[in-house]
Amino acid sequence: MAKLYFYYAAMNAGKSTTLLQSSHNYEERGMRTMVLTPKLDDRFGEGKVASRIGLEKNAETFEGDEDLYVWIAHEHNREKLSCVLVDESQFLTPIQVLQLTLVVDKLKIPTLCYGLRSDFRGEPFPGSVYLLAWADELIEIKTICKSGKKATMNARLDEEGNRVTEGEQIAIGLNYEAQSRDVFELDKVTPLNYQIPES
Amino acid sequence: MAKLYFYYAAMNAGKSTTLLQSSHNYEERGMRTMVLTPKLDDRFGEGKVASRIGLEKNAETFEGDEDLYVWIAHEHNREKLSCVLVDESQFLTPIQVLQLTLVVDKLKIPTLCYGLRSDFRGEPFPGSVYLLAWADELIEIKTICKSGKKATMNARLDEEGNRVTEGEQIAIGLNYEAQSRDVFELDKVTPLNYQIPES
Amino acid sequence: MAKLYFYYAAMNAGKSTTLLQSSHNYEERGMRTMVLTPKLDDRFGEGKVASRIGLEKNAETFEGDEDLYVWIAHEHNREKLSCVLVDESQFLTPIQVLQLTLVVDKLKIPTLCYGLRSDFRGEPFPGSVYLLAWADELIEIKTICKSGKKATMNARLDEEGNRVTEGEQIAIGLNYEAQSRDVFELDKVTPLNYQIPES
Amino acid sequence: MAKLYFYYAAMNAGKSTTLLQSSHNYEERGMRTMVLTPKLDDRFGEGKVASRIGLEKNAETFEGDEDLYVWIAHEHNREKLSCVLVDESQFLTPIQVLQLTLVVDKLKIPTLCYGLRSDFRGEPFPGSVYLLAWADELIEIKTICKSGKKATMNARLDEEGNRVTEGEQIAIGLNYEAQSRDVFELDKVTPLNYQIPES
Repeated sequence: MAKLYFYYAAMNAGKSTTLLQSSHNYEERGMRTMVLTPKLDDRFGEGKVASRIGLEKNAETFEGDEDLYVWIAHEHNREKLSCVLVDESQFLTPIQVLQLTLVVDKLKIPTLCYGLRSDFRGEPFPGSVYLLAWADELIEIKTICKSGKKATMNARLDEEGNRVTEGEQIAIGLNYEAQSRDVFELDKVTPLNYQIPES
Repeated sequence: MAKLYFYYAAMNAGKSTTLLQSSHNYEERGMRTMVLTPKLDDRFGEGKVASRIGLEKNAETFEGDEDLYVWIAHEHNREKLSCVLVDESQFLTPIQVLQLTLVVDKLKIPTLCYGLRSDFRGEPFPGSVYLLAWADELIEIKTICKSGKKATMNARLDEEGNRVTEGEQIAIGLNYEAQSRDVFELDKVTPLNYQIPES
Repeated sequence: MAKLYFYYAAMNAGKSTTLLQSSHNYEERGMRTMVLTPKLDDRFGEGKVASRIGLEKNAETFEGDEDLYVWIAHEHNREKLSCVLVDESQFLTPIQVLQLTLVVDKLKIPTLCYGLRSDFRGEPFPGSVYLLAWADELIEIKTICKSGKKATMNARLDEEGNRVTEGEQIAIGLNYEAQSRDVFELDKVTPLNYQIPES
Repeated sequence: MAKLYFYYAAMNAGKSTTLLQSSHNYEERGMRTMVLTPKLDDRFGEGKVASRIGLEKNAETFEGDEDLYVWIAHEHNREKLSCVLVDESQFLTPIQVLQLTLVVDKLKIPTLCYGLRSDFRGEPFPGSVYLLAWADELIEIKTICKSGKKATMNARLDEEGNRVTEGEQIAIGLNYEAQSRDVFELDKVTPLNYQIPES
């Protein structure tokens, strides 16, 4: 039975490595996959999924106004797809997440999305909000904070390595560090604006 | 190490049963727990967590403007708490979810939240958005759709058992049915307004 | 797609509660379940699954020489079964675990087994060895040790509450306490006979 | 809090890739890891962990009579270890698994074991029996069977690609294929010797 999977992790946990391995597992059995990556992420050249430990693969790039259901249905019609894999899936629009649920439910193609849960101030990405709400399986790829705890948040750093807490949600190419929630100091950076009252 | 857990499930999966069992496990070892439930859910009498299979327990009720960090810190100070359990946690405000992360990170009290991911039209609840983004562990409590598939969505039904797709997000006391995503027909009820183009 | 699930936990985590809730979820949707429990466990009266928080339900009892595949196939033939649930599944024989894999793979009936992983000296139960090796999903039901850590081991206690480390693997009706692995002192009680060398 | 993790999977799911990524994640943060692999697995040259998608790393090799606790304690004493990773961990002896629980519980070093659950006839490996019984976290690395289902079993093939169902448990360098349990035909190859009775 096809399912929508959301493999979530903090930065640099190995999401792309896991995606490339999964795609490879299908191809090794003679099954065809389609790998998608958002156009805005061109760190490794447009149309590539690359992992920090040295793997890479060509991928189709999509933009926010692309109808992923129509595109994938067309490709599937042309030649059967056994799996769809989406890198940096936090950048999907909510409607694109809906389209991926239809890829799973109507076309019966297993769909594996890899992405972050929240941004440099702890705000959930719109795509992640809907993946977390609708995916059939939520699976964490674990990584470590310098504190030794599990890292779940993503701090933004400037060129000198100093913490940045203001700016746009999306800023490709800046430095990020995966941190545990207390090292990240969520209460200090979230736009929710809450302070523990003094007693 | 204390963690924030989000046990998510569709309606009637047994969330309250699991909460009551977990609280019992602590109490049986002589450890003190605090059980919280939102004030608006008074189906079983205000201040009660009850399961459909016949268990119940008194609980503290909270409203959306309550500072849960301050309240729990006060209780913990009065007498050590080993665990905080929150029923119907989809009704937490985002700031209350933040307060619970501080209960975990500053007071080191394990906190177990039980709730739905999305509402009768598939929209994520605000509290769930932040629990899904910030919890240390996302754990599904599985249940079954009448179709035999796993149920992940929550359809609202009127008194005659007919599907309702318009109305307020929160409507306590109406009937709900846990459904799989395709039985639920997410694309037909979501306010995102998307239709598969005719080819 | 039918699957074989092994819900494992330490003693008193709430396995029977979870089993009763799951069976209830099916029955509530008009689906028929079959609940099995080993004959040797007659703590609550033969042929009952009971939870410490006050729930109970009649169950079929089986012995080690029963062919569970034949029995379940017969029942399924008589009237469709939507789910099979097995309590205290650590007491299954390896061949009975094999029979349950065939219930899943040939009869396509989802099968949920609830049980312990290891005994009072840390030795895995024969039934659990094969459930852990062959189940499609391994899902932990968590509980707490008096130390505050997760409990994964099962200490046997005599009537005065003293630890017992010699005796038969199966001793129904004695007292057990769920403990974390370090409180349990696995290296001191395992028949593997290992001692950290003095340096 | 240090934990013993067992990442289990069928053949060729990407266990070594995941191990190499995890070790990299630690090293990237300036933390020291120790990678262990059994001596009998010299497919990629003795003392190497290699993944089929092109990654590799030097590793320490161990044999069945090695005291892993003593060795790791010595290394940790010399220079702090933040993580121990064990490839092909199904080949650990039961006592070595016990030693790894002590690495976690006494030395407080997180230990990540990667391995198979069962062999070419469905029999659990001795090391896996104890990892499955004692690990703090059991995490599946999923892969696909040619049937499209999840692969959980490991079929042995000869040079012509024909299924082999007799032989030694350990035979490095032969070909293996990850299969779902029904494609594997567990009931036909298990030494448990069970046949569905004719009715």
